[in-house]
Amino acid sequence: MSAYDDLMAFQRDTEALSQVAGRLGWDQETMMPAGAAEQRGEEMAAMEHVLHARRTDPRLGDWLTAMDDATLDPVGQANLRHIRRSYDRSRKVPAKLAAELARTTSVAQGVWARARAAEDFAAFAPTLEKVVTLRQQEAAALAEGGDLYDALLDDYEPGASAQTLETMFGALRPRLVALRERILHAPHQPVPLIGDFPEPGQLALSQELALAFGYDLAHGRIDKAVHPFSSGSGLDVRITTRTNLSDPFNCFYSTIHEVGHAGYEQNIDRAYLLTPLGQGVSMGVHESQSRSYENQIGRCRAFTGFLFQRMQAIFGPLSIADPDAFYASVNRVHPGFIRTEADEVQYNLHILMRFDLERALISGNLAVRDLPGAWNERFEADFGVKVDKPSNGCLQDVHWSLGLFGYFPTYTLGNVYAGCLMKALREALPDLDESLARGDTRPATRWLRDNLQRNGGLYPPRDTIRRACGFEPDEGPLLDYLEAKFSAIYQL
Amino acid sequence: MSAYDDLMAFQRDTEALSQVAGRLGWDQETMMPAGAAEQRGEEMAAMEHVLHARRTDPRLGDWLTAMDDATLDPVGQANLRHIRRSYDRSRKVPAKLAAELARTTSVAQGVWARARAAEDFAAFAPTLEKVVTLRQQEAAALAEGGDLYDALLDDYEPGASAQTLETMFGALRPRLVALRERILHAPHQPVPLIGDFPEPGQLALSQELALAFGYDLAHGRIDKAVHPFSSGSGLDVRITTRTNLSDPFNCFYSTIHEVGHAGYEQNIDRAYLLTPLGQGVSMGVHESQSRSYENQIGRCRAFTGFLFQRMQAIFGPLSIADPDAFYASVNRVHPGFIRTEADEVQYNLHILMRFDLERALISGNLAVRDLPGAWNERFEADFGVKVDKPSNGCLQDVHWSLGLFGYFPTYTLGNVYAGCLMKALREALPDLDESLARGDTRPATRWLRDNLQRNGGLYPPRDTIRRACGFEPDEGPLLDYLEAKFSAIYQL
Repeated sequence: MSAYDDLMAFQRDTEALSQVAGRLGWDQETMMPAGAAEQRGEEMAAMEHVLHARRTDPRLGDWLTAMDDATLDPVGQANLRHIRRSYDRSRKVPAKLAAELARTTSVAQGVWARARAAEDFAAFAPTLEKVVTLRQQEAAALAEGGDLYDALLDDYEPGASAQTLETMFGALRPRLVALRERILHAPHQPVPLIGDFPEPGQLALSQELALAFGYDLAHGRIDKAVHPFSSGSGLDVRITTRTNLSDPFNCFYSTIHEVGHAGYEQNIDRAYLLTPLGQGVSMGVHESQSRSYENQIGRCRAFTGFLFQRMQAIFGPLSIADPDAFYASVNRVHPGFIRTEADEVQYNLHILMRFDLERALISGNLAVRDLPGAWNERFEADFGVKVDKPSNGCLQDVHWSLGLFGYFPTYTLGNVYAGCLMKALREALPDLDESLARGDTRPATRWLRDNLQRNGGLYPPRDTIRRACGFEPDEGPLLDYLEAKFSAIYQL
Repeated sequence: MSAYDDLMAFQRDTEALSQVAGRLGWDQETMMPAGAAEQRGEEMAAMEHVLHARRTDPRLGDWLTAMDDATLDPVGQANLRHIRRSYDRSRKVPAKLAAELARTTSVAQGVWARARAAEDFAAFAPTLEKVVTLRQQEAAALAEGGDLYDALLDDYEPGASAQTLETMFGALRPRLVALRERILHAPHQPVPLIGDFPEPGQLALSQELALAFGYDLAHGRIDKAVHPFSSGSGLDVRITTRTNLSDPFNCFYSTIHEVGHAGYEQNIDRAYLLTPLGQGVSMGVHESQSRSYENQIGRCRAFTGFLFQRMQAIFGPLSIADPDAFYASVNRVHPGFIRTEADEVQYNLHILMRFDLERALISGNLAVRDLPGAWNERFEADFGVKVDKPSNGCLQDVHWSLGLFGYFPTYTLGNVYAGCLMKALREALPDLDESLARGDTRPATRWLRDNLQRNGGLYPPRDTIRRACGFEPDEGPLLDYLEAKFSAIYQL
């Protein structure tokens, strides 16, 4: 077992260094002084050089060759699967291409931000073309003759393929478009919550909600950031939130969403600390946790009843006096261009169009210069509204400037998985709403911890979901859930 | 010049990684959740492995051998001097010994803290013996037949030797003991400031003082910590402070002290960013800046007049109504066992005894078991008071548990250097007190920046001071300053 022990000792340092790099990212978004950006870029690049050198270290190849997986227990086999996968992927990409990609995307983010501010897609197009070309080259190196897009997708969702996603998404789209139509034309429309909600109250209730969902502050902390995120694995998993004076739900549901991500990380079996199993297994599975916490649990009727009481206690009488109307308001579906502001019904439609457009970009079927036209046409088809400006259209998301092609579909995959998990969870816990109405999420989060989160990277992503649900995941439960929930709210 | 460029590119990553490791330390003292300590230990160890591997990388030896220093400009030569010194020192210490030292000292700190809390030196003695033995072995590897203590001292103050320090400290001790005696027996004794000073006011004035001393918040930030410190070089130099409801001077002078360290780092020529010249050149020179800011400038009559006004404006009428009495109170000399709470007069006496005792420990002339007796005897001789318990005696400082032998004398060396610098500064700026009385430190800090700080690591430590002063530094100016200042305050 000596080669395995050596390998795992080496890997332990790699995992620790990867946590350090992640914490630098957290610091950058929460604590870093504004003038430190240039130096921070050098620090991040230096960490990336170290990590890349470790991921492609020839000793890894020697250890992996020397070992017989069959002699290992399931944990050992899973560790090897992760390390081998990372080693193979890292070695396939030429160092020069990896460096060029890092350099280009680090500049591209700034170009994108300026182009978006100026509503000027043409200013971003040459940079995006370069990013697309480099990612195509990387995909070709990784795919070795296989599908380019699948090779990129595999980075975020190991084992997924564009073809299976296309089938799943193809089944989602018509029913979501139809549901959206019926909702927006329903005679009964919920009213928005009106008022000013001072920041101290928002942050206090935000922390209360985080703790109610099981977030462990002994192994985490909550700060403010422009774009909320979760960061870190193991014993140090931090989240951020934001406040908006007139929109407290933004704060509360951002917090609950990030607690979903962070709770997953915090609940992984401690035996996997600083091993490849000691972190969430994929972006899709991660999103299934954050979306379950945020939507299926946090936005259900029972829990919003608790939230209604807590908001009244903290902020005084609300503009909505009835808990059912409050529930409807929390789940209000409203037209809008922006993915990150979308409700449960429309969110996946945003993802589906990005999935189709980015596959076309990577395959070469769509030229970058034709992207705005293709975007706007698709948007009008799915949302019934014309895009008015690039910042409300194809310039709204940072992802493509960072080269994140293959990332978007994991959001909807996460929603689909969340639908499956909640079906299983509600069957296992028939009295769930009684505890949620008291603000007690423990039965729900405990079920997710015991049936999914604790496993970390032990099983492949889809297998992780299947084992928790007890059935093969598909889009059915999510669609059934959305149609039932919103038919009730909108009296369809 | 290709070997030099390659070397400097390699070094740039090393410097950046070293900044990352430093920021992890900052995070640990300010932001880290309590439960993350174990994982953080692994992260720090992984960073240390990476840095040690880079400092001893065989390519460094190849580059250094391939280069002719004489073909380089002074900056290039200085860079090479630093890199060669680090490479030679790092390679002399066997990896096994370095690892054993890291492991032992990381545990020793906890053992020390528990022993101090329990007032039980015997509980710490075996651990301290082990640390001393390991440091003796390290010193022997570094010294190659030379003086053991000098080899350790060289880590903190390159070029210094125990012998020259002994001569300097030998001249300080009798005059400081005599001054202390006269002060504590003087009929006229200043009164302490009495009152409660709410934290928000302390923190607001603390930040105002930091800015007044030129601290740049665009490249830094101020947080609270149990033990104030400064962290980082280049574009990201952070400080911490602390508050004590009844002792606002603790907060204000901690802040000014750390701004001295941070200002030094922030004022180094930006051309040296992420090179060996881009940080303070030694602990002694660093301390000369922090002590100048804190004492020679911050505690002079002119500046305390400004502080007196600001404290009245923020906290209302003070228990001391006269600016001269306030000045005397700020500089009050009072008996005490604890180094970190000592005034300007007694501080160096604390250091001098530690210097003698730690040299005796490293040379083997003093056994660890005899340390408390030796400490208490010396303390009574220099301070006229019997030590009442170990936490007020040889268990008060963390340094030795961390293996920091050779570090203490740099505190007094810094004070000696500060005395020299202020003599030169006051000669160059005869109207200094006029600006300080308005709270304007710019003429003073600009002089320090232009004559010293901007050079970073360009010149060796003592040379750095000599160039700024225009004369060979010695203890004379510090003693003259202290005797004149405290004779006036105490009407001796």
